[in-house]
Formats: sequence, structure tokens, C-alpha cells
Amino acid sequence: MRAFVCFDLAGARDAADRSTQRWRDGRPLSAVDGLPVGVKDCFDVRGLPTRVNSGLFTDDPMPLDAAHVDALRRGGAAVVGKTVTTELTMASPGPTWNPWDLRRTPGGSSSGSAAAVAARMLPIATGSQVRGSVLRPASICGLVAMKPTFGALNRFGGFDPSPSLNHLGLLGGTLADIWETAHHIAATVGGDPGCAALAGGATLPAARKPKRLARQYTPGWPRTDETSKAAFEEFLRKLSTLGVEIVEPGAGEDLAAYEEATARTPDFFFDVMLWETRWPLMAWRDAKPEGMSETVRGYVDKAEKMSVADYARALAARDSLRARHRALSGKVDGFITLAHIGPGQMGQPAVGTPWYNDPSSAIGAPTFNLPLLAVEDVPLGVQLMGFEGADEDLAAMARALLAAFASPTVGPG
Amino acid sequence: MRAFVCFDLAGARDAADRSTQRWRDGRPLSAVDGLPVGVKDCFDVRGLPTRVNSGLFTDDPMPLDAAHVDALRRGGAAVVGKTVTTELTMASPGPTWNPWDLRRTPGGSSSGSAAAVAARMLPIATGSQVRGSVLRPASICGLVAMKPTFGALNRFGGFDPSPSLNHLGLLGGTLADIWETAHHIAATVGGDPGCAALAGGATLPAARKPKRLARQYTPGWPRTDETSKAAFEEFLRKLSTLGVEIVEPGAGEDLAAYEEATARTPDFFFDVMLWETRWPLMAWRDAKPEGMSETVRGYVDKAEKMSVADYARALAARDSLRARHRALSGKVDGFITLAHIGPGQMGQPAVGTPWYNDPSSAIGAPTFNLPLLAVEDVPLGVQLMGFEGADEDLAAMARALLAAFASPTVGPG
Repeated sequence: MRAFVCFDLAGARDAADRSTQRWRDGRPLSAVDGLPVGVKDCFDVRGLPTRVNSGLFTDDPMPLDAAHVDALRRGGAAVVGKTVTTELTMASPGPTWNPWDLRRTPGGSSSGSAAAVAARMLPIATGSQVRGSVLRPASICGLVAMKPTFGALNRFGGFDPSPSLNHLGLLGGTLADIWETAHHIAATVGGDPGCAALAGGATLPAARKPKRLARQYTPGWPRTDETSKAAFEEFLRKLSTLGVEIVEPGAGEDLAAYEEATARTPDFFFDVMLWETRWPLMAWRDAKPEGMSETVRGYVDKAEKMSVADYARALAARDSLRARHRALSGKVDGFITLAHIGPGQMGQPAVGTPWYNDPSSAIGAPTFNLPLLAVEDVPLGVQLMGFEGADEDLAAMARALLAAFASPTVGPG
Repeated sequence: MRAFVCFDLAGARDAADRSTQRWRDGRPLSAVDGLPVGVKDCFDVRGLPTRVNSGLFTDDPMPLDAAHVDALRRGGAAVVGKTVTTELTMASPGPTWNPWDLRRTPGGSSSGSAAAVAARMLPIATGSQVRGSVLRPASICGLVAMKPTFGALNRFGGFDPSPSLNHLGLLGGTLADIWETAHHIAATVGGDPGCAALAGGATLPAARKPKRLARQYTPGWPRTDETSKAAFEEFLRKLSTLGVEIVEPGAGEDLAAYEEATARTPDFFFDVMLWETRWPLMAWRDAKPEGMSETVRGYVDKAEKMSVADYARALAARDSLRARHRALSGKVDGFITLAHIGPGQMGQPAVGTPWYNDPSSAIGAPTFNLPLLAVEDVPLGVQLMGFEGADEDLAAMARALLAAFASPTVGPG
């Protein structure tokens, strides 16, 4: 599967043995005691290198665990190894296969985490998302995934590209695993500094059927294949018959303005992302040019041409999108759309496309991928987005949707 | 003086030679071309270690310059070396002497930067401030210093304690050097990701005499010695005769409420700071206990006892103080108080006290130290604070105050 970059099997076995003893003694450390986890190779794991699929970094072992890894270990989890990502989480794909169909991409940049969980090697793995890197591979690999409110889970300790966009996220087999793991991380190391940590209880909240969901088209819909479009339309019809009102953008001026703003997300998103790579990537380019692909060098050259004013304009556009989103609070329970333009592309040098993920990434609102659809016998995810800080309510709605729809797939072939 | 931890004199000479040639050719790279700078040893400098006066870190050379160091080099500045700080910028003092009086502390945690500039070894050096670590040593060493609006200068690349409080700041001999250097950094690597970069022109704005300044007492005043109090009262009287109205907290309910809130800063400040050290310092304590002093271990033990809810309460208290400060915008031009409780303490194991600096640190508003007073033949600084994002206007007012008051000191003995 090529999902892992490196392992710490001895350490994981040792952690598992100690966990077994604690459970036998009736004294587990936490809900994650004994949980085998994979860590995306942009985060530091003590004793293992952080390579981020890049020639910039060395094989030197890291002295410290990233914040969330530290939290998981304190809770008794077994860190199995580090999972493949794309170059610097933004460029050249890794070698990972999609366990559903070896000809397809597993999506990126949390490629190895998605593949390892989809292939049932792990119940859960960590990911990071600047531009869809948690939700997209989860959609393509048929997983539940959570990108929390921006800053709700401490993402520090490792390579941190585009820091005002980057999120720590989780990819797993079940919503309960994801919620309980996320809660444990937040309770132990908090959210990002200065941000509110994930709010809510230690266990998955009771299901709550949403009353009204806004349908989003985003820049993804015009790029979506007809079969995937039909599958999503059918899904929305079923949702309606279950009593969930689906509100189209045409239903109100505020909804239309919001949809229009999401369609323009690509106009500013790349500028926010690029400027935030100006440092350190300009410095890396000059210090170690041979460690950088042409793709990343192209990004750096673009970033170098930007000005502080360009970045300020991009941030203002993002603020405006966030305000339009926030203005819909109380009018709809959440937002529903696809998580990818279709099944994972054929051919490995691809990681999926960001078009459905840019708005939820830019807004920073909590978003789940729910593995509710199948197209061409492989998974296609539905994206459920809520409002900032209301992650727990969104989890309650995600639970209701998962319960209402039997997953069409039981595991990769 | 023991101001430096390590040097790169060959690199600095080479940079200086190349700069000399560019100036001779009439083609300097920037306003900082040829500027000799010292870098506080919490920031990375390529090829030198980052030790932060701590046993946690090794002598391995860093592969990359911190963002602001990268910006300075791109502008042609000569990075002379790294300056002494306190352990992890928060605990055990370094060995640096105060050039004004070798029996006194130079203040901390930007101790070496302050001493090197005060001793005229450098025109400017960089510092960082969580809890007064730029303004305090500048007060004690008789320097101009700028702590910009939170996030206005990119502080990344190095050890970053308490990230929602930490600022990159500058300590220098003149306000013009500081402003032009800050502008160059902001134009090259921006502010912190997601934050507005320092706004304003490339050169120091024209002086603007403030019309009305709010006097702040802060938790510092009750701890200030009588001589320093008298010097500050005399300074305020002179300001009044120059036509600057000094507004006491009793002059209005909003002013009184603000002053009262600043007096309560210590109630929450330490909790914000501590929680944000929970990770990485708990992880460091367990990974390398021998590398940590008893003082830092004490902080970590306190942080370990905190909960997410404790931190959320502390953040809410900070938000409330910020709101009270913001509410005074348009009513006063800025805020004036001392920058330290008096001259630097006698005896080296001291770094000064944070009592006058906590409010401006917590609020994140731009603040200058102005070396306008002398007590016991050593400097005592005045702290001028403005409003978030209005750094340039504050620099204009700082220029007016510096011009109105001849500095009582011309250099350390």
C-alpha cells in the first residue's frame, strides 16, 4: 500500500502491551488508551525523522513529539508510524496506492493516513489540511474525517505551511473514534495558541437530524462528472424525504451572496497560501535549492512577486467570505456539498482537486467528510460544514446522517 | 559585556564588504544594507545554534534563518552574532552585564541585545516579548525600543514560547533606525501569518505632538521607588507645559474601567502564558528532564494542573481588557507610563519586573520605550502605547516626545 514512510513497531508494541495491562487492571488512562494511530509525516514524532516527502529535510530523528502526538501518547495510544504525504504537503504526490482501486490516487496530501485507515491497517490517523488535504483523501478513500474549527486542535510540532490556513484533522473508520480522539487531544494540549479548543463532551453527542441544510455548489460542481452529480442529487432527494429541508442558493439574497463568494474562493485562496510560504520557502530555496521540486520552486517564485498589499487584499477577501458565512448562522443548520469532484483520479501522479474544499478551508468552519456515496464502485464523500466553534453540534448532525444512510460500501476489495 | 552567545564575524565582514561595494556603486539593496545587527538567541540564524540559554537544545547549526533574519540578509544587513537571553526567554538570567553600571541587571529576556546596543557595539538588535522582554531591557539600558502591534512583524523561526503573546521587537539607538528596519522586515516577510503586517511608510513619519495621553498606573506604580515616581511626575508636568493633556484614570468611567482592568492583568496573564507552554514544555520535561531548570519545571508543573477551561477563562479576561482599551480609541491619542519600576536591580540574578509591561503585552497594541529619564545616574524608560494597527501614528508621537525632551544621558560610562 505504501502508506507509511517509517514505523516504530517496537515502540507501538510496547505501548500496546502496557495498555493491555491497564485495561486488564481496569485503569485505562483515557479513551484513546491502546489506540493504534498513524501520524502524517509533516508532524514530529520523537525518535523518527520528519521528511514531508521533501529533499529539504534530513533523516535526523526529531527530539520531541508534536503537540497532538504528545497528547495521544499521554493517553496511552500506540504510535505505529508516519504516513506518506505529498512534497511539503503541497506538491509532488507520494507513492501511496488507493486500497479501493490500485489504479487510482488515494488523494492528498494526507495520502498515507487515508490509505492506511481505508485498508483497515489502522482505526485512525492524523492529517493536516490547508486546502482540502483531510477531507479530499477521506472522500476518495471512503472514511469519516473531521477538519475542526480553525485552531480547535493544537497543530504545532512539525512543518506548518500556510499557518493561517493549516488545520490538524483526523481520518478514521468511525465518527465515535474521531470525536473521542479529538476531544482527548483538545483536553490535553488544547487548540492552537490563542484559539478556543474544541468544545464539547468526551463522547460523541446524540444524533440530531438537521432541519435545514444549505446546498453549496462551490467551484467544484462545474468540474464534477455526471455520475457523481447524479449520485449527489439522489442523496439530496433522500435527505428531503427524511425531513431535512435542502435550501438552494436561490432561496435568499444572503444565501446567493454566500454561494457567489464561495465561487470566488480560488481568487484569493492561493494568494493567502502562497504569501505564507514566502518565508520559509524563499529561504529554503536559497539555502538548499536541490531539495525543492520545480513545482514548489514555481510557487516560491510566485510568492516572491507578491507584496504585503497583495496579501492584505487576499486576507480581506477571506474575511468577507467568513462574514457572509457567519451571517447565515441561525438561518440554516449547516452546509452540504460533495467533498470531491468524483472518485479518485486514475494514475498515481494526482492527489485530487481542491475545488469543493477551498471554501470550508478558507472559512475555517468545522467540516466532516461522510462516506455516504459510491460511484464506479469506489467511494465518494459528502461534505457537511457547520459554524465556527459549533463542532459538537455538527458531530451530532453527522451522526444523524450516518445513521440515516447505510454506507454503500463495507471495505476496499 | 557578555552580550553575545556566538558570532559570525567572518560572515558579517563579508556582508559588510559587499554592502560597501553596493553603496559605492550607488546601488544599495535597501535601507538596511550594511546595517550590523544582533539577533536574540531564541531566533534561528543559519549556520549557528539556537540555544535559548537552555539545556534542552544542542549546538547543532540551524539550517535556516528566522523570517526576520532572512529579511534583514536580503536587504544586505550584516548579522554579527546571537545575543544572550534568559533560559527559554522566561527563567534563569544569562551572564550579561549592564553597560551603564556593571552591578545592575541589563533586564531581560532580550538582555544581550539591550547590552550590545547600549554599549554601542551595534546600532540595533532584535528581541522578542511575551511579558515585557523588549521594553523592559530597553528601559533599563536606555534604548529606543519598539514592540509593534501583535503580529505586525513576522516572528517565526526559532523557539516561540506562548505564541498568542509573543512579539518580535527591535532595540536600537535611534527611532529612525528602528522604524526603517521594521518596515523592511514587514515588506519582505510580512507579519505573522493571518495578521496585518506593519503599516506605514519606509521612513520615519514626521513628528506629531499628541494632544491627549492617558496616564496609566498599572500594577507597576505601587512597586515603583519614590525617586522614579518623582522623575515620572516631573516628566508629566513638563509634558503638560508642552501642551500635551495628561488624562488621569479618574477623568472618565471608561478610563477608570480600563485602568482597573490593567491592574488585574496579572490575574490572567500568567495563565495565558503558562497554558501555552503546556506543550512543548511538558513534552520536553519528559524527554530531557536534565535540560530544564527548577524554575521552568515549576512553570510546567503549574501548567500541567491547568484545564482547557482555565485557559478559556484567561483568554476571555484578555479579550475584555482589549475591548476596554479599544473603546478609548478616538478619546485619547495614546497611553503613557513608566517602562520599569525603576533602574535595573543590583545583582545579576535578576531581569527586571514585568509589572509595567503586562498590560501592553496582553493588549497587543504597539508600544515604544523612550529613553527619556535618568534615576541614580542610570536610564529609566517611558512607555508610550497606542492602538492596534496604528504603529505609524505612534512612531510619529514617539518622534515628537524624543524631540521635545533632550535625552538626559549620552552613553554608558
